[in-house]
Amino acid sequence: MDYTLQLEKIAQAVEILREKNVDMWLTFVRETEHNADPALPLISPTNVTWHTALIITREGHKVAIAGRYEIVNFQRMGVWDETISYDQSIQPALVEVLDRLKPRQIAVNYSESDTAADGLSHGMYLTLQRYLEGKPYQLVSAEDVLNPLRGRKTPGEIARIRAAVALTDDIINRITAYLKPGLTELEIAQFVHAEYAKEGVVPSWDHAYCPTVTAGPDSPVGHVSPSAQYVTKAGQLLRIDQGVILNEYISDIQRVWYLQPAGETSIPAPIQHAFDSVRAAIMAAADVLKPGVEGWVVDDAARKTIVAAGYPEYQHAVGHGIGRTVHDGATLLGPRWERYGKTPFGIVEADNCYTLELGVQVPGYGLVSLEEDVLVTDHGIEWLGKPQTEIIVVRV
Amino acid sequence: MDYTLQLEKIAQAVEILREKNVDMWLTFVRETEHNADPALPLISPTNVTWHTALIITREGHKVAIAGRYEIVNFQRMGVWDETISYDQSIQPALVEVLDRLKPRQIAVNYSESDTAADGLSHGMYLTLQRYLEGKPYQLVSAEDVLNPLRGRKTPGEIARIRAAVALTDDIINRITAYLKPGLTELEIAQFVHAEYAKEGVVPSWDHAYCPTVTAGPDSPVGHVSPSAQYVTKAGQLLRIDQGVILNEYISDIQRVWYLQPAGETSIPAPIQHAFDSVRAAIMAAADVLKPGVEGWVVDDAARKTIVAAGYPEYQHAVGHGIGRTVHDGATLLGPRWERYGKTPFGIVEADNCYTLELGVQVPGYGLVSLEEDVLVTDHGIEWLGKPQTEIIVVRV
Repeated sequence: MDYTLQLEKIAQAVEILREKNVDMWLTFVRETEHNADPALPLISPTNVTWHTALIITREGHKVAIAGRYEIVNFQRMGVWDETISYDQSIQPALVEVLDRLKPRQIAVNYSESDTAADGLSHGMYLTLQRYLEGKPYQLVSAEDVLNPLRGRKTPGEIARIRAAVALTDDIINRITAYLKPGLTELEIAQFVHAEYAKEGVVPSWDHAYCPTVTAGPDSPVGHVSPSAQYVTKAGQLLRIDQGVILNEYISDIQRVWYLQPAGETSIPAPIQHAFDSVRAAIMAAADVLKPGVEGWVVDDAARKTIVAAGYPEYQHAVGHGIGRTVHDGATLLGPRWERYGKTPFGIVEADNCYTLELGVQVPGYGLVSLEEDVLVTDHGIEWLGKPQTEIIVVRV
Repeated sequence: MDYTLQLEKIAQAVEILREKNVDMWLTFVRETEHNADPALPLISPTNVTWHTALIITREGHKVAIAGRYEIVNFQRMGVWDETISYDQSIQPALVEVLDRLKPRQIAVNYSESDTAADGLSHGMYLTLQRYLEGKPYQLVSAEDVLNPLRGRKTPGEIARIRAAVALTDDIINRITAYLKPGLTELEIAQFVHAEYAKEGVVPSWDHAYCPTVTAGPDSPVGHVSPSAQYVTKAGQLLRIDQGVILNEYISDIQRVWYLQPAGETSIPAPIQHAFDSVRAAIMAAADVLKPGVEGWVVDDAARKTIVAAGYPEYQHAVGHGIGRTVHDGATLLGPRWERYGKTPFGIVEADNCYTLELGVQVPGYGLVSLEEDVLVTDHGIEWLGKPQTEIIVVRV
């Protein structure tokens, strides 16, 4: 097995613990096949079954406590200073390690705001409380550790995201060659799934709506399964939102096509205006996206631009982190709405990877919606793929 | 999309709420791509992104509250009496529904004992507490609802598990035809993965160690990745633990092979004794496995049998539920150890599906370990596949 990425992230975790002045980070998990903790794959190459505790301290001490049948996976990584196995209960070994390392605070993986930092189940939290009853250790949220750990992509991570984006750009070209009037959304989704299968990749989110295919003006917008009811038509728009998981890292890109009827010589003005406005809003976000800004500021730039162009506000964030998952946590480029918690108030950092995305409806034609993947550099951004700068026209 | 299974489980949930005298069951989730709740797929055919509340009452009233872009997925199911969408916060709609339905207790998905009932993250629990501050509703664990909901398989679920087991039995035959001395564990795992790919199925647990391949006496036992270091040899054993996900339901089966050297006319006595003892222990468990017994009693029957035969106790449960996941929750056929919480004290019910599994080391030869998949019937069990009744001999 290749542990390169996990070793990069474990080293980064120690740096972050020092920077944030946190004594200890504890990932406490079990049965991660179905009770996944999004933090686990950052530091473990496999799932676990029995209760498992992965401990990293600001002094750089690393302890893995796992069940008898799984400890070997951690021993093989070569990075854990101690690997301790147990049979009947993890409690004695866990308490022994904590009593020896004496952390003031133990940061554990819960967060109201950041879903990628909220992998600890409530049942497991109760178990931990029970194990530590009467002990002086304070359980705190690991948000401050997991935000930067997840957000600051290592060179290995950036290379993988780039590869996923490049493959998606290529599949977009194949879709352009395939498009014609009379295709149902479902047929188009099947074509895309077949291309993924050829490449040995899977959709970067739910197979049921990745790709999301929106044909014409009547198809409902959102995380909705492609339907046999809506069909591509000459003189209408098609929007596809998709991404792939390649080597465990994802892409997330939206493109819009126009099926231009024979004889029509220019794109209808409402479509062109919508496209130019969406593109301008994305560029407005891109212009302010740099290390040091709060997430909501980036959203606000795009939001003001699209509203000034005469369109309604989009009802989501203009950008979310991408990485191992399609909504990769940390700072959100989103509005200050209750459901986003603290995430829009986070600070953008170098080596964050984001989407920039929004769309508007064009009555009678369909949806114009774009989504680009970008890397935050020291002074601004770099496009991870080839951004869409004009409507893709399919002449029919 | 096909909602058959979800509709079966939603109807079953209403029956269980009545039976257990629980007013309301609330599944409260977000971003289930990476913060999965194992209960969600029982009642929703897709993942969700924004905060989503799925409410089922003992009166049979069903409410889905979801974000603007996802509510359509619930509307299409046709089973929800109310489907309510929101933009900025789920709180107002959720509180309005609760104030209208006035439950005494709200059962939510957390459990120290049953991982399949522990999908609510601690952060989401805190959010729910905040939303309901000052309200009279009591949040309780949904264990009592989710145990039977998960454990009592519907006809549709049993049919799917049978199909996954049948395919695995077939792949076991292909492995027998392929085996010879000199294969590394890694090569064997690659062969199995290639057969899965041909069938369009994926491993039922972590690709890194499904199949788990144990060649000879020196290979470490457990949830360990197959290695290039250990090689099949004449006169040694090979054990494979594997399963597939077919139509969202899984199998989980262990088989053992003996590579018999040319000229050897009978299986070496230590191997035969180990096999007979393991088989006898599994039969002892099968004999007591019926509706009404506590889980630990089944484990105890197998455990006593294998110890009486002169072998050490196995360090796990003799059986776990199977279904959508390979450790499917509900009552565990396991010993009364701390880490299993209350699950060994649960009561076995008709239509539960279980593994029966254990193994012993045979010094100088390797691991003898069997695992069968069974359905609990009204009076006993039915084998879901073809149980292994003798060592599979590969003559070399």
